[in-house]
Amino acid sequence: MVNSDSPIKDPWQILEESIIYYYDRPLGTVAACDPNTAPLNYDQCFIRDFVPAALVFLIKGKTDIVRYFLVHTLKLQIKERQLDFLEPGRGLMPASFKVIHEEREQYLKADFGDHAIGRVTPVDSCLWWMFLLRAYVKATEEYSLAHTPEMQKGIRLIMELCLSARFDMYPTLLVPDGACMIDRRMGINGHPLEIQALFYNALRCAQELLLDNPENEKINQALNNRLTPLGVHLRHHYWLDLERLNIIYRYKGEEYGENVLNQFNIYSDSIPYADLSEWLPANGGYLVGNLGPSQLDCRFFSLGNLVAILSALVTQKQAEAILNTIEKKWNDLIGFMPMKICFPALKDRDWQLLTGCDPKNRPWSYHNGGNWPVLLWLLVAASLKHNRPEIAEKAIEIAAQRLPQDEWTEYYDGKNGRLVGKEARKYQTWTIAGFLLARELMDNSQCLSWISHN
Amino acid sequence: MVNSDSPIKDPWQILEESIIYYYDRPLGTVAACDPNTAPLNYDQCFIRDFVPAALVFLIKGKTDIVRYFLVHTLKLQIKERQLDFLEPGRGLMPASFKVIHEEREQYLKADFGDHAIGRVTPVDSCLWWMFLLRAYVKATEEYSLAHTPEMQKGIRLIMELCLSARFDMYPTLLVPDGACMIDRRMGINGHPLEIQALFYNALRCAQELLLDNPENEKINQALNNRLTPLGVHLRHHYWLDLERLNIIYRYKGEEYGENVLNQFNIYSDSIPYADLSEWLPANGGYLVGNLGPSQLDCRFFSLGNLVAILSALVTQKQAEAILNTIEKKWNDLIGFMPMKICFPALKDRDWQLLTGCDPKNRPWSYHNGGNWPVLLWLLVAASLKHNRPEIAEKAIEIAAQRLPQDEWTEYYDGKNGRLVGKEARKYQTWTIAGFLLARELMDNSQCLSWISHN
Repeated sequence: MVNSDSPIKDPWQILEESIIYYYDRPLGTVAACDPNTAPLNYDQCFIRDFVPAALVFLIKGKTDIVRYFLVHTLKLQIKERQLDFLEPGRGLMPASFKVIHEEREQYLKADFGDHAIGRVTPVDSCLWWMFLLRAYVKATEEYSLAHTPEMQKGIRLIMELCLSARFDMYPTLLVPDGACMIDRRMGINGHPLEIQALFYNALRCAQELLLDNPENEKINQALNNRLTPLGVHLRHHYWLDLERLNIIYRYKGEEYGENVLNQFNIYSDSIPYADLSEWLPANGGYLVGNLGPSQLDCRFFSLGNLVAILSALVTQKQAEAILNTIEKKWNDLIGFMPMKICFPALKDRDWQLLTGCDPKNRPWSYHNGGNWPVLLWLLVAASLKHNRPEIAEKAIEIAAQRLPQDEWTEYYDGKNGRLVGKEARKYQTWTIAGFLLARELMDNSQCLSWISHN
Repeated sequence: MVNSDSPIKDPWQILEESIIYYYDRPLGTVAACDPNTAPLNYDQCFIRDFVPAALVFLIKGKTDIVRYFLVHTLKLQIKERQLDFLEPGRGLMPASFKVIHEEREQYLKADFGDHAIGRVTPVDSCLWWMFLLRAYVKATEEYSLAHTPEMQKGIRLIMELCLSARFDMYPTLLVPDGACMIDRRMGINGHPLEIQALFYNALRCAQELLLDNPENEKINQALNNRLTPLGVHLRHHYWLDLERLNIIYRYKGEEYGENVLNQFNIYSDSIPYADLSEWLPANGGYLVGNLGPSQLDCRFFSLGNLVAILSALVTQKQAEAILNTIEKKWNDLIGFMPMKICFPALKDRDWQLLTGCDPKNRPWSYHNGGNWPVLLWLLVAASLKHNRPEIAEKAIEIAAQRLPQDEWTEYYDGKNGRLVGKEARKYQTWTIAGFLLARELMDNSQCLSWISHN
C-alpha cells in the first residue's frame, strides 16, 4: 500500500486512498486502512476524524469533498423532537457513517454510538461539524452555503440541543462519560473540558454564521447570553496556575450561601497539590479537565486546552501560559511523539475505579496518557496563533522522524510515547491528515484564521 | 421542646410544631427544629423531606396542608423554556422554599440548589411531587384537583423535562452528581438507581393523572412508549443476584456490534465479585446503584430498591428477593437503626476519589453508609406490600427503642448504625414523620394503595 521509495509522496497517496465516494463523488475518508487488522468500524467515516483531512483538502483547494460532506452529514442529523428516547436528541449528529450499496442505490447509514463499544453518545460530532462548516465558508468565502435554509436550521438545532436548560446550574454542558475523542470511560463524565471548549467554539461559529432574521432571533439571543458567562466560568473556575493552586489549597469546605469563595465545595485534600506545586512551571498554567460539586480534576487534557487557545476562550495571557507549560514540560507532554492526550495517567485504584479496569486504557496507554499524533495540528495551530513557531517546528520534526517509519500509527504508549500503541491501527487517516495539515499550516499561516478566533 | 412525660404524644407534638404557615394556613414543615444548632437551611421546607409528613397528615385526615402544599409548590415550578441556562430547565421544581414576610406581604422564596453546598440540582423534587399528588388524590378522591388546567400543565412540564431526548441512548435519565436524597458527591452521577426508580414511579403516577385529551396526546404517548423499555432496562441490566453475578463474572470485554451480550462493556475485574459471591443470599438479589459504559456500581442503595418495590418496577419475584436480602443481611442493612442508606461504604482511595475527600461522608457516616431512620416508612410499606409484616414489626421495634431517646436524630453512623450521626441535627422532621408514618401504615394498610402500584 505504501510506496516506500517516495517518503514525501506517500502520505498524500494514502490520504487519497482513504477517500470514500457516494454516487461517485468524494464524501469523506475512512478512519483507517490498515491491511493487517479487521476493519470493525474503522471502515466508516467519523465526523471527528475527518476534520484534519477536510482542512487539508480546503488548503489544497479540494473544497468539493468538504462541501459534499457538510451537506450530507447535515441530512443525518436528528431533526425531529424526541420524547420517547428511542433515538438521541434533536440536533445530535452521528459519530460516523458508512456508504451502503444496495443494487443500484446507495445510502448513508449513520451510527449514533449504538454500534460502538459501551454505547457512548457522540456529543462532540455536532460541535466539530460547526467547526468545519465555519472553516469551509472562511476558506471558500461561500457564505451562501451556510445561509441556506437547511444549514440555518441545522445550526439552530445544534444550538437548541446545547442551549436548552435541563438539570444544570452552570453555563457548561452536562454530558455522559465518553462523549468526545476519549470515547471510553475515563472519569470525563459531567463537564469535561474537551466538550466545553468545543461548545464555546461552536457558539462562536454559530454567532458568525446565523443570519439576523426573525426565525433566528431567539437562538441568537440565547447564544449571546450564554457565551460570556461560559467564557467567564471556564477562564475562572477551570484555570489552574500557582496562584490559583495556592487559593484552592487554603479553601474552607462546607461554606453555605450564595456568595461563598469555594463555590464548588472542593476539599483541598482531594487535589494532588504536592505533585502540582512541583510540576507547575512558574510562568505556566492550564485549564483543568473537569469541574463539579467537590470535584476538580487536575489532569491536563491537550485537546481542550488547544481548542481553548484557538477559539480565544482563554485570554492572551492564559494562552501563553498554556504554551509555556507545554514548553517547560516537554518531556511529559510531548516526549517522543506530539502529543500526550492527557497527563498524568490514571494508575492503580484510580484506573480501576475511573476506567472500570479497562485494559485498553491501562496507565500510559491509549486514552489514558497515550501520545496521539493527530493532536499535532492543533498544537501547531495554537503555537502559530501566539507566535511560537519554535514549538511548532520542534514538534513537527519529532513527528516526521517516526510517523512514516511507524506507518502512521493511531497512537503511542509509554510515559514518553516511545512505544507504538499496543492495539493501534496503522495507516490511521487522521494521523496522516494531522501531520500534513501541521506542515501546511506552517507554510500557509493565513489559513489559521479559518480555524481560530480573536 | 419535648414533653418528656408522654412518649406517645411527643412526636405528634413536635410534628405539629414543625408546620410552617403561609398567610395563616399550614403549608409544609421545616426540615428540623433543633434548638441547639444554627438553622442554615434547615428552617426551609424541602419537597423531598415533606413527603412522609404529608402522608401522615393524609392518613390523619389533615388533607388541607397537603393540598395547599401541592398548589403552591406548583407555582414555584419553572414554567418558561430556558435557552440561556440562567435558570434551571422548564418543569424542574425547587429543592426547598421558605416563607418570606415583608411588611404585610408574604411570598415563597424557592431554592433550586443555588444556596446548597456544592450547588447540586434537585432532580428528584419534581418526581416526589408527582408521588405526593397521586397519593393525595387517592386519599381524598379529589381527582378534580389533579385535573385542573394548572396541575395538568405542571405534570406535562415534568414529563417533558424528563422525557426529552438529549445526549442519552438509554431509557434511563442522565443526571449530575448529588441530584437526589444523596445530595453530595458520592459516585452517583450518571444513571443512579434512586432517580430511575422515582422516575419510573412518576411515569406511573402521570399515567393515572393525565387526562386523555388532545393537549396531552403527545405526552401520553411518549410516557407510554417510555414506561415499558425503562422497566425492562432496569429489571434486566440493574438486577444482581447469584445467577447474574455468574454471567457478569464470565463476560467478555470489547464485544463489537449491536447484539452483544456485554452491552455496556463491563470488565468483570471491576466487580467486587469475591465479596459479592459470599454476601449475596441464595434467595436474594437487588437492583444495583448505577450503570454506564464499563460501569456497574454494585452498592446496595435502599431508597431506590424500596421505591422499585412500591412502584412495581421490579417483578413480584424480584421484590421478594430484595426483601430476602434485607432479612438475611439484617446486621448490614438494618443493624441498630433501620436502615442503611447504602451498603457498603466507600473507603480509602474510593472515598477520596468518589466523594472528593468529603469529611462529612467518611466511611460509615452520613450518606456514605450511614443509617437513616427516614427510610423506615419505605421499608415498612414495601414489606407490607409483599406480606412480610415481620420485617416491618421488627424494624419499627428497633427504631422505637432509640429514636425518642436520641431526640429524633437525622442519621446514625457506624457500620451497624450505633452512633448518633457526627453532624446530625436532632428533631429532624422527616425522622419523626417517617416513624409515625411507619406505625400508621401498620394500622391502616388500606393506605398502602396511595403510595404503591400493582
